[in-house]
This record gives sequence, structure tokens and C-alpha cells, in this order.
Amino acid sequence: MEIDPRCKESFDRQGLMKLLGAELVEAADGRAAIEVPYREDLTQQHGYFHGGVVTAIADTACGYAAYTTMPSDSSVLTVEFKINLMNPAAGERLRAEARVHKSGRTLVVVGATVTVIRGDKAVPCGEMLGTFIALHNTSDVEQLVQT
Amino acid sequence: MEIDPRCKESFDRQGLMKLLGAELVEAADGRAAIEVPYREDLTQQHGYFHGGVVTAIADTACGYAAYTTMPSDSSVLTVEFKINLMNPAAGERLRAEARVHKSGRTLVVVGATVTVIRGDKAVPCGEMLGTFIALHNTSDVEQLVQT
Amino acid sequence: MEIDPRCKESFDRQGLMKLLGAELVEAADGRAAIEVPYREDLTQQHGYFHGGVVTAIADTACGYAAYTTMPSDSSVLTVEFKINLMNPAAGERLRAEARVHKSGRTLVVVGATVTVIRGDKAVPCGEMLGTFIALHNTSDVEQLVQT
Amino acid sequence: MEIDPRCKESFDRQGLMKLLGAELVEAADGRAAIEVPYREDLTQQHGYFHGGVVTAIADTACGYAAYTTMPSDSSVLTVEFKINLMNPAAGERLRAEARVHKSGRTLVVVGATVTVIRGDKAVPCGEMLGTFIALHNTSDVEQLVQT
Repeated sequence: MEIDPRCKESFDRQGLMKLLGAELVEAADGRAAIEVPYREDLTQQHGYFHGGVVTAIADTACGYAAYTTMPSDSSVLTVEFKINLMNPAAGERLRAEARVHKSGRTLVVVGATVTVIRGDKAVPCGEMLGTFIALHNTSDVEQLVQT
Repeated sequence: MEIDPRCKESFDRQGLMKLLGAELVEAADGRAAIEVPYREDLTQQHGYFHGGVVTAIADTACGYAAYTTMPSDSSVLTVEFKINLMNPAAGERLRAEARVHKSGRTLVVVGATVTVIRGDKAVPCGEMLGTFIALHNTSDVEQLVQT
Repeated sequence: MEIDPRCKESFDRQGLMKLLGAELVEAADGRAAIEVPYREDLTQQHGYFHGGVVTAIADTACGYAAYTTMPSDSSVLTVEFKINLMNPAAGERLRAEARVHKSGRTLVVVGATVTVIRGDKAVPCGEMLGTFIALHNTSDVEQLVQT
Repeated sequence: MEIDPRCKESFDRQGLMKLLGAELVEAADGRAAIEVPYREDLTQQHGYFHGGVVTAIADTACGYAAYTTMPSDSSVLTVEFKINLMNPAAGERLRAEARVHKSGRTLVVVGATVTVIRGDKAVPCGEMLGTFIALHNTSDVEQLVQT
């Protein structure tokens, strides 16, 4: 899978993605994917992947899918998203796949599906729809002021 | 602040909340609050709290606010939520405060506001609206089948 | 296109769909579609289809897509939805297409895309993700008490 | 109640609001309210106000609440919103009240509560959270190109 170097470099600066053990496995042409293997410290009260993990990788995948459609002098921020947690995220590995629905100059609308790998099955456990903003003339590295 | 023992016990079983260093500081009468101090491994690419942390504590606070309104033989799950990330979560501490809008027999609608403490200011950085489901005759401890 | 008679009968009782000039053109197997031709009294301030019309037919299409997956003794209600209005709905006709993502015993998660027909182009103008509830042992005709 | 003349003028150009019999009753200082009396042609299949009406007035109230915070040379568009329909909208009159959560230069986050008046009670039936965009240097009257 192709990974846009700008997305990879940005992803690697995210402390939380490292903490969760998340890996960016695809980022190109309005699409991105992130995977996380199961650990006991990623769980909610029933021992499954916490919705916060499902959401964090879906949001981040959406952000980088959006970022692949933005000009080189821009940075990306999440405006908002909504997620349905449809099935318990019980399994060995989570995978979030995001794809851009509409790429505007300022705003990008992105959807993502999260599946949990349980043995040889991939069970859909999250469906996200969100909005991302391009901050023009803004380095992804520098500190931002509020939008 | 009051903390419903059932919520506290459930919260303590959440591996992710421990990993993030989150603390349940209130849970009673349709309200709940969770706080997280800043750490470098909780960041997004600009060094602020990651939206995934903002979201995880808001979702969890909403869930326990909902849980305080549910009967004793029930368990709680997130159906879905939407969150707006309104300002960069730049500061020393995050605090999510949730309050129930409508408590039905099956579904509970909950809102949450997340603020980031920056010196002596509390800056709103997230606004959530979500839906939670009561699983009747279900222990919060046992493993669940999908709803 | 196939139209489930139960959905058709329910649709025909909706005063608002008649007022908007909306037509149910498909409802079967977890899918549904509704169309509305342009009229000046369906507009927002710039003369395009109002977001309220885009939303009303998307919500209704999602509801009937969900309803096709529910048992015969049930009724359907919207729990909640989120919609992105991605492009101005400028054109001669709106079309909402809904498809079920996950059909549970109680809750059904549904997505919809709304397109506006502009000459020979179909432009996506709305993307919805929502949650619908099956009220078991409830006629779709009788008056409901609150859930 | 105060009504910003710019909002009133824009509201009066909305064909849909006239069709629904909606009235703008407040629009100032980051707040707006819209009311609609019951009619049989505003119903869903059980005879209550259709969720599409609840949503249309909530969305429009949010838009004008946002608009009161925008500069004079701008126009306002809905980016997206989410709404929970919490109780059947059974009653004589709907009222949507919107208030701005965060007003940025480009994006404005707004919440709204819709209540239905049933005799001497006001029952909450909808809770919205949405995002609105200021189009700078754009008349609210002129035709727009896509954002």
C-alpha cells in the first residue's frame, strides 16, 4: 500500500498513536488506513477494544485521507465527526479505512469504516462521517492558533 | 463530588482509561465528569491533546452519566455520538462534563462539554451529543453478545 | 424498482412527504430511495433546495430502508442522524438513496446519499448516517407513546 | 424579542419556511428561535410533526444564530448537523431555540433544542449540534458557487 510521506511524518509525531500501538498502513489519493493490534490496556469494561480506540484511529485515518487531497502548504484539523459503534469490538486487531466523500478548498468530508478481525472474520464495528479543515499557509509542524 | 460505586467499579475495569491516566471525578444523578492531566504521549501532531483523548473521555463520561439513570440489573453501551472539536486542546488538563438530556427505558441521550485548563482559564474544546443504550438483565462485568 | 407495500402504505400517511411532492421510488432489502422535483416553495434563501428538504427525504429514505429489515409486527422511528450538506442543492430534482449498514434486533444503522440532478449530471449534495429503532408489537398506524 | 433585520430578510426569502408556516421569532446576539403551528400536512405516519419539520426549523434557527455573529459582508451556509429526536413531536406548536457555542472566523458551532407545546407543557423533542460556515465577501442574496 502507498503511504504519502507527508502523512507518515505527521502521523509519527502523534504521541497518542504511538501509545495505542497504531500503524498507518495506507495514505494516498483520498484514502487512508490505520491498524491496531489488541492489548489489555486498550479495553472498555467488558474487555473489548474501547470505543475511544475505535474512534481515535477512525478520526486519524479520516484526517490523513483528507490531508492527501490538500495542498502542500497546508495543515489539517478535525472539525467534527459522528460515529456509530455497531458491534462490540471483540477481536485481535482493529482496522480503520477512510475515504474522502467531497474535497473542497476549505472543508473535506470523509467517511470511515472500522472492522475488527476475529479469527478469519472481519466484523464491522464502527461507521464514521466527519468534516476536516485545511489550514492554508500553515505548517503541519508549527503550533497553531485557534481557528 | 459524588461517585456512584457501580460507575466507579466499571470505570476501573477500563484498560484504556488507565492507560490515558484518566480519573472519574463525578458520577451521579445523570451527570459525570472525567479528567486527564497532560502527557506527551497523549498528543496529536502539533503537541496538543489528541482529539482521540478528548473524545474518549467525553464518550466515557456520557456513558456513565447515562448509567446513573439505568436500573441496577443493566449494562450500558455507546450507540453513537457526534463531537465538535472547537479549539485546539492546548493546556495542562482536560475535563469532560456530561449531563443527560433524556433518559428513556432503552435509550439515553447525553451531551458533554470538554474544556482544557490553560493556566487560570478553562477553554471549551469539545462539544458532544450522543446516544447510549441500556442492556437490561445484563451484568456490566459479563461478556456481551452483539446488540 | 421494488417497493415494499408496508413502506408504501406508511409513506402515503406522511403529510409532509405529500406537501413536499416527494415520491417513494424504491423500498426493499435494506434499501430505499425517494425523489422530489424542484419547486420554488422548497428553497432556502439562495433559491436552491432547502437543506430541510434534503434532510427530510434522506431521513425518510433511511427510515424505510431500516423498516424493510424489521419484523411485520413492528413500527420504525428515527433515533438520530447526522448529515453533511456538501454542495448547494441546485438542480431540477433531488434523489435520496439509503442503504442499511447494520440491522440489529432493536437498532438499525443506515447511511444515505442525496444527489441533485443538474442537466445530465448527478451532483452529491448530502451524506447522512443515522440510527433507527424498531418498536416491536407496535402497529405503524396506531398512536405511539414516547420511547 | 429582537430580530436582526439581515436575518429576517434572509428568512423571508426561504420558500420552505413559508411553505411550513414557520415564523422567525428571535435572532440576535448568537441566539435565534423559530416557531411552527401544527398542520396535518406537516406530519409523519403517526400524525405527529414530521422529523423533517423539527429538523428544518432547528437547522434554520442554528444558521441564523450563527449569522448574527458574522460580519456584514458574509453569507451563511450549513456545513453539517446531527439531531436526536427524543420524544414524539405531538402537540400544537413546535419551537426551536438555537444558541452559538463557538464563533470562529470561518466556522461557527451551534446547538439547538426543539420543544413541542402540548397543552400547558413544553416537551423537548429534538436536540441538535451543528457546524455553519461564513462565506466572506458574499451577499446572502446572490447565487453561490459550491464551497
